[in-house]
Amino acid sequence: MPKISEKGHSMPESPIRKLVPFAEEAVRKGRKIYQLNIGQPDIKTPQVALDAVKNNNIEVLAYSHSAGFEDYRKKLAEYYRQKDIPVDSNNIIITTGGSEALLFAMGTIADAGDEIIIPEPFYANYNGFATASGVKIVPVESTIETNFALPPIQEFEKLITPKTKAILICNPGNPTGYLYTKEEIQQLSAMVLKHDIFLVADEVYREFTYDGAEHHSIMSLPELKEHAIMIDSVSKRYSMCGARIGCLVSSNKEVMQTAMKFAQARLSPPTFEQIASEAALQTPQSYFDEVIEEYTSRRNILVNGLEAIEGVRVATPKGAFYCIAELPVENADDFARWLLEEFQHNNETVMVAPAAGFYSTPNTGLNQVRIAYVLKKEDLERAVEILKFALKEYNK
Amino acid sequence: MPKISEKGHSMPESPIRKLVPFAEEAVRKGRKIYQLNIGQPDIKTPQVALDAVKNNNIEVLAYSHSAGFEDYRKKLAEYYRQKDIPVDSNNIIITTGGSEALLFAMGTIADAGDEIIIPEPFYANYNGFATASGVKIVPVESTIETNFALPPIQEFEKLITPKTKAILICNPGNPTGYLYTKEEIQQLSAMVLKHDIFLVADEVYREFTYDGAEHHSIMSLPELKEHAIMIDSVSKRYSMCGARIGCLVSSNKEVMQTAMKFAQARLSPPTFEQIASEAALQTPQSYFDEVIEEYTSRRNILVNGLEAIEGVRVATPKGAFYCIAELPVENADDFARWLLEEFQHNNETVMVAPAAGFYSTPNTGLNQVRIAYVLKKEDLERAVEILKFALKEYNK
Repeated sequence: MPKISEKGHSMPESPIRKLVPFAEEAVRKGRKIYQLNIGQPDIKTPQVALDAVKNNNIEVLAYSHSAGFEDYRKKLAEYYRQKDIPVDSNNIIITTGGSEALLFAMGTIADAGDEIIIPEPFYANYNGFATASGVKIVPVESTIETNFALPPIQEFEKLITPKTKAILICNPGNPTGYLYTKEEIQQLSAMVLKHDIFLVADEVYREFTYDGAEHHSIMSLPELKEHAIMIDSVSKRYSMCGARIGCLVSSNKEVMQTAMKFAQARLSPPTFEQIASEAALQTPQSYFDEVIEEYTSRRNILVNGLEAIEGVRVATPKGAFYCIAELPVENADDFARWLLEEFQHNNETVMVAPAAGFYSTPNTGLNQVRIAYVLKKEDLERAVEILKFALKEYNK
Repeated sequence: MPKISEKGHSMPESPIRKLVPFAEEAVRKGRKIYQLNIGQPDIKTPQVALDAVKNNNIEVLAYSHSAGFEDYRKKLAEYYRQKDIPVDSNNIIITTGGSEALLFAMGTIADAGDEIIIPEPFYANYNGFATASGVKIVPVESTIETNFALPPIQEFEKLITPKTKAILICNPGNPTGYLYTKEEIQQLSAMVLKHDIFLVADEVYREFTYDGAEHHSIMSLPELKEHAIMIDSVSKRYSMCGARIGCLVSSNKEVMQTAMKFAQARLSPPTFEQIASEAALQTPQSYFDEVIEEYTSRRNILVNGLEAIEGVRVATPKGAFYCIAELPVENADDFARWLLEEFQHNNETVMVAPAAGFYSTPNTGLNQVRIAYVLKKEDLERAVEILKFALKEYNK
């Protein structure tokens, strides 16, 4: 038998996928499952985006530009300028999802064995992209006690070595829902400038901020011109996860030229989805207002509901649509599996994502789960109720 | 200024893109360019595929399965079985283009510093994927004298080291148009079994074979069950290059499980393009018959036309839609640039891809170009005529 690579062996399995076989078995048993484990919104995709695809008049589905449609990049730059992100189309490469933008960013700035510091808990697939790129992730712990705020800058500085090429943040955060303050972004900026390393920010949840809180992009700081790389995606903004359209944005010319070589190797991003994404830019503000209102209610139902359960602690999210909850269990992994394998309340149960998979440090967050509030309100209410019954029974 | 990675510096620029600025300048000067340099067919995409996208009734453009739609994989497996490739849906992972399938394959079987042997000249983007993956390509030269047939097996064996993880072939070949015989595939098979390494075959041009020649897939050899990995794509088959839908196919379970981890990290392939690709499987045989007839005529026009030019030697292609031609020039790179910058015949010129970029060995193929016969017949005739005038003037 020919051998699989070490890299292949060390590629992590997605923590939100590990439970899938147990969920499938539960469904086979006729059980209804409330899925709190994945960030797949039920929100409708803007009609203008769907219509653009239906009304296309393509006859030859040809390669597009490796950086993506020029028209799309121009309009996207306009959108960013409205968000106080001063870029033009040359600062944007359209990618196949935020995923590919992250891969391009890692390849552009880090070699095998280089290090990228990331506050944990973090989006679990960063592990996969880092492994695929041969890059080492160095975690710096943020805690539920501070709502997962930015760890003190000294904690980052302790970890910086000659191999450190970048700090990577997700803002607003998946899985924490934390929204960095202007001061936190400025602290990060001063640090990366001092050490002359990159600051990479995954800002795919930019639109999802609550309670009037404002999002601060790393791209808005002029001093970060050469140091900032932004990762973005249409997946969450327009509920277009299946489009797989994202982008890499930077004002650093050498970064753009290098990322472009990665982009050219894979030829182009998908055409129909670029058509949808370009049209989605016409989505009226009312769409977002409604969506934000909806998510705010959902968040409130979820957080209030969870906090009312004895022994549960929640970090109230200010952005994105996830929260981390600490449960009165020893091992959330076992509990999540038990929910699917053993538990039912009126033949219904819930599926949550054990948070340990979002930490890079072993044995951390073992009693935490990530909950996505992407279900409609009555379903969320019922899901919280089920969780309450389940915890009671589990701890009997 | 923060530093770009070594990997980023060594990412090759695509040889077919290097000339683009000169072509753009020529167009600005009002020149008409016959593009013989890229494999973007002018053939219409099957209506059934385009219609499926127009008639979709998606409301939430959600993530699909990381391995791609199950229905699509089932139908695709059926298509393969008709081609004497005995697989089922579990042996297929749908990828974002053949490009991503190659990246997954390299990540699955090779670590940084490992080696993959490839007959050169080869598809230039293999270099990019290898650099991105940290893998070293070891070339074994095939020559125009043999029409780019498989080099003698001893030439491969001389190059095999403990770091060699696979042989990679492209069949039918881009850029050579060479179609491996059954005996050549069997020789390769015996060699990879002897050394217990993988045989990876990029078979995206499977449908394009001429003069009644038959394509022999590595997947049809039962003895290669654990050793064969096939790369495929809808790009050329259905003239759907912009779809970016491909797949990785293998009967080796460990390969599939490992590639699946790479697939899960990037979530899913694009949805609309999967709809198009699934529908494209209904394309009637008459479509392919017409396309093959068309390409055969184009090939004949091109090859006959080129052979009639003094000093030009052509390797007659049996498959795909490229050929390598040796020109009576010292440096085809200079000549290709001169065609765009200086030459014109009735204000028209041609764009060709210098073949040196398809060789990994330095200073090889310097007097060769790759020509794609993806233009309609009268355009090809005119393009060959221009080339004839150009060579005469260039060599004055």
